[in-house]
This record gives sequence, structure tokens and C-alpha cells, in this order.
Amino acid sequence: MAAADDGRKAIFFGRFISAPGPESLLIRQGAVLVSSSNGHGVLEKTDWTLITPAAAFKAFGVEEQDVDFHQTMNNGFFFPGFIDTHIHASQYPNVGIFGKSTLLDWLTTYTFPLEASLGGKEPLADTNGAYEGNRGTEIVNYSTSNPLSKADAVYTKVIRRTLSYGTTTASYFATISVPATNLLADLAFKFGQRAYIGRVCMDHPDTCPTYYRDETPDQSLANAIASIEHIQKLDSKGELLAPIVTPRFAPSCQPETLSLLGQLATDRKLRVQTHISENIGELALVKHLFPQYESYTDVYHQAGLLTSRTILAHGIHLDDRELETIRTQGSKISHCPASNSALGSGFCPVRKLLDNGIDVSLGTDVSGGYSVSILDSVRQACLVSRQLGFVNGGDKKWNIGVTEGLWLATVGGAKCVGMEGRLGGFEPGMLFDVQEIDLSGENSPVDIFGWEKWDERIDKWVWNGDDRNVRNVWVGGRMVHSGK
Amino acid sequence: MAAADDGRKAIFFGRFISAPGPESLLIRQGAVLVSSSNGHGVLEKTDWTLITPAAAFKAFGVEEQDVDFHQTMNNGFFFPGFIDTHIHASQYPNVGIFGKSTLLDWLTTYTFPLEASLGGKEPLADTNGAYEGNRGTEIVNYSTSNPLSKADAVYTKVIRRTLSYGTTTASYFATISVPATNLLADLAFKFGQRAYIGRVCMDHPDTCPTYYRDETPDQSLANAIASIEHIQKLDSKGELLAPIVTPRFAPSCQPETLSLLGQLATDRKLRVQTHISENIGELALVKHLFPQYESYTDVYHQAGLLTSRTILAHGIHLDDRELETIRTQGSKISHCPASNSALGSGFCPVRKLLDNGIDVSLGTDVSGGYSVSILDSVRQACLVSRQLGFVNGGDKKWNIGVTEGLWLATVGGAKCVGMEGRLGGFEPGMLFDVQEIDLSGENSPVDIFGWEKWDERIDKWVWNGDDRNVRNVWVGGRMVHSGK
Repeated sequence: MAAADDGRKAIFFGRFISAPGPESLLIRQGAVLVSSSNGHGVLEKTDWTLITPAAAFKAFGVEEQDVDFHQTMNNGFFFPGFIDTHIHASQYPNVGIFGKSTLLDWLTTYTFPLEASLGGKEPLADTNGAYEGNRGTEIVNYSTSNPLSKADAVYTKVIRRTLSYGTTTASYFATISVPATNLLADLAFKFGQRAYIGRVCMDHPDTCPTYYRDETPDQSLANAIASIEHIQKLDSKGELLAPIVTPRFAPSCQPETLSLLGQLATDRKLRVQTHISENIGELALVKHLFPQYESYTDVYHQAGLLTSRTILAHGIHLDDRELETIRTQGSKISHCPASNSALGSGFCPVRKLLDNGIDVSLGTDVSGGYSVSILDSVRQACLVSRQLGFVNGGDKKWNIGVTEGLWLATVGGAKCVGMEGRLGGFEPGMLFDVQEIDLSGENSPVDIFGWEKWDERIDKWVWNGDDRNVRNVWVGGRMVHSGK
Repeated sequence: MAAADDGRKAIFFGRFISAPGPESLLIRQGAVLVSSSNGHGVLEKTDWTLITPAAAFKAFGVEEQDVDFHQTMNNGFFFPGFIDTHIHASQYPNVGIFGKSTLLDWLTTYTFPLEASLGGKEPLADTNGAYEGNRGTEIVNYSTSNPLSKADAVYTKVIRRTLSYGTTTASYFATISVPATNLLADLAFKFGQRAYIGRVCMDHPDTCPTYYRDETPDQSLANAIASIEHIQKLDSKGELLAPIVTPRFAPSCQPETLSLLGQLATDRKLRVQTHISENIGELALVKHLFPQYESYTDVYHQAGLLTSRTILAHGIHLDDRELETIRTQGSKISHCPASNSALGSGFCPVRKLLDNGIDVSLGTDVSGGYSVSILDSVRQACLVSRQLGFVNGGDKKWNIGVTEGLWLATVGGAKCVGMEGRLGGFEPGMLFDVQEIDLSGENSPVDIFGWEKWDERIDKWVWNGDDRNVRNVWVGGRMVHSGK
């Protein structure tokens, strides 16, 4: 699987496509030279005039035998890796399982029991009537001597799956369990995915189940720190792997806990992720739990959690003052269209967020979202935007097109995880986090008839492509997935 | 590929799942005996007590060597084939290509030029500025000596693709070309898909492009009949292949044409398909073109096109009087959620249609819809219903769940194509139109961890499954696709 991850250089030759702007699909033919060590491979040189591999070797001054060489297929291209700015790794086994629930009943019925079990802690049946523990007729053989065996199986699967769909960077929620969260970090580091990993902080006795919550604000903070320090030991530079402070969402945290975490993020200059303004019932709950605050946004603002390194998932029902606060603070929104539709949460007004100067990216929100595929999130972002246009009298200004969706999934993601200019394109100095796409091949779900222009082939990829079109994936120049 | 299509009998053994009702997922273990000749294989016997293949041979009184035998995998099951009640075969090359258009500009920009080209007739560049003919840098080598070579390529692909996704029955729109429509019928018959095939009738000089329309009402009728008679010659019984009278939609037909087609459908007891009430701009156009009619529905009603054998695609914006007329006439609605979202057409109130006693089924509406997969239509029907619930103040009554979606895709489809009780389940006497699903296997996009209950596995299939999970497909007992 190695490629340019051992100090060797690599040349990538062929078609390079990216979406540097919301209306700009950049299609170039040429070659790039990647120099790499320890997973920090960057684009050293690019040349968009080269038309043969031989010309590339010559132009970059290297001998063929001294470099790795990768060339796109006839209907293939290199594309920046996708950035999933909101995904609950721990919920992966529940993708597609949500019945007719909406956010708050979904949490108690499906989500908390699963998350708790990854820490080796099965809730008692009577703590939640809807939960049946290890269900079904088949027996799951998780080792009882290793309480993390279930987390190991789940986290291994979710990292492999997301890589196979071209997700090179993910901002993960884990669970409240420190050892399970640390295991997720170990695995992401081992598999080479760029990952921000957050132990979930939640301790509000009125909203969190007894079997799944931190006991006090101090314990919540201490456990957050324990996980942060483990992660920082794995990657001291914090470029491939980094911790992210993760209060679940306002309703599940005591005000003191939110403030402690805000202080922690400020003191240690850490990333932050949480949820905001997803569901109408949730808004009412926030109002009930935090009556002294001006708004949902104000709860986070007063706790010091709204930084320029903060990712807020959803942001569907924010009012203008909240948008202004978020913009001023430089916090980011992760738009999760699949989840919003699946849980009936509403329509995120992406155009309005962007017009207000707020950075937006895409999140799968597994398992509120049913798919680990950011390509599917691009699709759903397009669909939801058209529905929002319909709701607003047919106004096309709301439309997110394919190019803009891909821009959100790459450049937008880079901005939201604090990697603007380092991820999401093919410019010299950028990290080589790239997926190689092949639209042809026997197993491709996409049919190219041959007369389609390249922007139409991209349309076809977005609407019908899947992991079968992902031929290879590199993170920091290291090949981390091969679907060949 | 043969299985029980040569007079032999076949036993299918293992897990059988179906959705006989909107809230009823029927999961049975046992065996069925299928007797078959010439693609008319029916379920002769079922037995839901059998637990070994040997018991099945014995119970059905057959010797192992005298029958074909198929058994589901560990995470596999037989499921009724999907019924796509609205698909434009001719538009398949455009799946995913629609830019930011809505219905009326999508027709002129993307659709009419492509449809015309399948009849061997390329529009001149100046008839439509947006159309560039055979575009792109690569050359398409369709034989100029065979004007149907493009149609052959496209129709072969769409039939193979739909079969691979488990669509055993499709109600196809072709184009206005008689030879190309007949070719689609030939191919569907050859590949063994159950298909209703309609030559598209459109002749309104104000709305149809000069390069793509019937010249007069009489020509429209004569060409419809020419294709109908070709199809009826292929399958005189009309059970596997049948014609369907297909006025494109009211705005593209002169009133006289609609009446001639209504009379034709009545005289010959033929199926009918068309579009209704899809898009706000279309409603205004109908009002403009048919000022003397009470409603869109009334245009079809007065033309005699609303029969109990009529499939109306979309039906998003119908008022109560229109619903009452449709119910009284026994006409059916094909709900096309992917298309409605993609073109920003609105939210079809499926619950209201059902509550009004109207039969509803699912259509992919390729290429207004971007996918040939009815499984994806089930997903989109669920998503759209939740959004409709949100729009209606969070009312869960609008929710279409996974089981109801599958019911629409099978039993609903059977009702809408006039095959109620003959398709969509595993009861004795029914036709054996079946897909064998396997959720496991190296290439499955679905991850089964082992503790999921069977209804949850079905959830996972619906939300993340695709053609890789379709192991085999039978129509009338004949194996028409194998993905092994």
C-alpha cells in the first residue's frame, strides 16, 4: 500500500479536477510532484503543460526508477479527498436504523444505548424500555475479557468504510469512554486517515441517561483532558491526528461543564465541535434548560466555545442575531443534509449562511445520517437546496449545484477544520490528500456513453457514483486505500 | 442463466421477505415451488414450515434432480421484484445531468434533444442554443448506416441496469420514434423484463420543438397504433410485454390528440400513462393552454384518459376535486420523489393520496430522477415524507417508513400496473418476479454486525444497499440477471 510515505517522491500524472470556488470546476491535465515523509506528503511542484509521463520525469528532474508513479485511467481523475466535518464513529452500526424517530427520541431509543455499549457498558434493559441489548437471533461474539472489542470492530469498520468512499479527513465524535475514544485515535492513526477525535462530554442529569453520562463537570473535564493528552502523544505535531473538544450539545451539558470546556479549548488552542439548532423540539429544550440565555448560540458564546476553531453541526434554525454572533466569532457550520432529511429536522439555509460570511462544510452525521459517503452528502445538499427553493416560492438563489456541493465537501471542509489552503486542492504546498476516481470499469455504477463533456461526467459521478469509483486514496501522500 | 424457464420446476428455499401492507413486513422461512413455461412461472405451492431442503423436496413431491434449486445466503432473502411505474428509458444517458433547471427548461435544454437523437434524428444546433449535439472531445461511433444504433446502446444499457437493481417490471416512456420504441420492446422482451412500453405522443406546435413532434393528431394516433401492434405481436397474451398509450403530458398535446388517444385506450382496453401536476410553472402553462377546462385533471378526464388502467406520474399539486376525480376513475399515481427533489418540483403528499383511496406506487422518473434504482426511490420517498412532515409542523402522520416504502415499490406498483394479486408477494398463484438479496459478501455496501434484528437488517438494506446486494433476479420464473 506504500506510496511516497517513506521519503520517496511520487509523480501523479493525468487529469486533475477540483472545485476551488462554488461556481468553479477546475479541470486540468498535467502532473504533480509529491514529496513525502511520515504521512506529511505535500505537493512540491505542479505542471499543467505536460502531456506525457516522460515529459513529467524530465520537467521535475527525477529518474523514473527513483519515484512512485500513478496515472489516471481514461475516464479517471484525481480529486481532493473529501472532508467529513461531522460524523459519530460510534454510531456507525446504526446507519439506517432510526424508524420514524426525530432527534430527541432517536437519541434515547437508538443512540445512547449503542454508544454506551462501545465503552463495554451495556445498559440494563429497564433503564430504557426501547432498548433490547444485543438483539436478534444471532449471537455476537465480542470477547467479554476485552471490553473494547466491540469498539474495535466498529471503529475499524467505520475508518475503512469512510476511506473507501474517499473521506481523507474526518471530524469524529466518539463516546464518553476514554479508552474507547483513545482506541479510535489509535486506529485512525494506524490506518492513516486525517482525523480530529473527540471524547463526548455529557453530564446533565435531566437529559442524559444514568447509564451513560459523566458524573460531574470536573469528571467531564478530566476525561476530556485524558483523551486529549493520549491523542497529542500519538501525533505531537497534530497535523494528521488531533484532539477536538466535544461537548455533545447544550442540552446534555451543565453550564459549568460548558464553561470548563470553553476554557480548556482557549487555554490549549484546541478545536471544538458540537451541535446547534438542529430540531424544533431541541430548541424548546434549550430554552427550558437555559432560560437566562438570549439564544442557543448565546449558551455556547458565554461558555467561550465559539472560536474560529469551532465546528457547529446543523445550524438549521438560527436567527439573524445568532448568525451575526457566529460570523463574528469565526465559527463554522457543518451542514448535514442526509441527517436533516432523515430525522425531519428541517432545511438548512446554506445560501443564507454563506451570504452571511459563515464558512460551511458537509457532514454525514452518521448515524442521524444513513450513509458514510460524503458524495451522498453532496447529492443530498443539492436536493435539499432545491426543496428549500421550492418552499421559498421557486427561488433558484437557494440552489446548491454539483460544483458548489463539491466545493463544500473539499474547500469548505478545509476551512471548517482549520486547514484552509492546506487541503482541498492541487496547489503547491498543499497536503496530498487525494482520491483517484475512475468512472469506467466493469463495476462502475456510472455509465459514460462517450459524448458527455467533462463537467457532465462530474455530474454523473456525483449523482450515481459510489465507492466502486474510488480507485485509490492517499492521505499526506501515503496510500491509505486501494479499491483496485 | 436459465432457471425454470423451460418447463422445469424450481424450488426456492430459505428466507422470504415481503411487505404485503404499509405497516406489515412479512418475514418467513420455508420453500416455494415454481412451475414455469415461457416466462410465465408462477408460485404453485408454498410451505412456511420446511426447515431443510430435503423436507422441501419431499413436501412438494419432487426429486432433487428434476428441479432447479435456489437457496438464500446467511444474510440473504428473497424479495418481490421492484416495479418502476414511471421511467423514461430514452433519457437514461442524461441521469444526473440537469444543472439547475426545473421542469420546463429541463425539457428543452436536456431532454428533447436527447430523445430526438434516439430516433436517429439529431436536432440542428440552431433549433436550440443550449444543445451542442454530440458533445465533448471524444467521438461516439454510432453507425451512421443504422439510425437506431444509439437507441440500441441506450435501451440495452437501461434494461440491464434496471434488472441489476432488482426492477422486474417497468413502465417505460420511449420517444416519438416508432422504430426506436419498437426496438425498446424487442430488447425488453429479449432480456425478459416485464415491461409496458409507450411511444410518446406529442404534437402541440406551441410547446414541442419543430425537430421533435408528431405533425398532426392523426399522425400521432397512427404512430401510437403502429407501435402498439408491434408490441402485441411480440407477446399476444400481453402478460410479459404490453403496450401503453403515452401522451407525454397535457401541454405537449393538442386537445384532439388527447381525445383520440383516450378513445384508443378505451376501445382496445389499453393501459395509459402520462404526467400530471408536477411543477408550478407547468400548472400555469396548462391553465394557459386549456382555459376552458376546470383543472389539469379535467383535461385528461374529458379526453377519456382517466381509466383504472392509467398511471399518472407525480400528482404533487392536485386539489381536492382533482383527487376525487382520480379516485372515482380509479386512476393511479406514480410517486417520483428523487425527481421531485432534483427538479425542485415540490413534495408529493403521499399520505393524503392514500387516505383519499388512490393507489400509489414508485417511479424513478429517469432522468428527471437521477437513479434507475427503485431502492433509492424508497429512500427518497422516506426522506421526502419526513420533510413534508416538517413543513406541516412536525406532524408524523406524513411519515413513510421503510416498510411502507417497500410496499409502495412492490404491492403499490402491482396495483398501479393492473397486476394486483399477481405481483408483489409470495402467495400461491402469483408470478415469480423476485430478487434474491444478499446483505453480506465482500462487496456489500451494507455492514451487518450480527446483532441486528431482521427488520433492522431491512432498514440497513434500504438505506445503504445497492445493486451489489442483488444476487439474482427472476421474472416469471426465468432468471434474467445474476450478479454473482
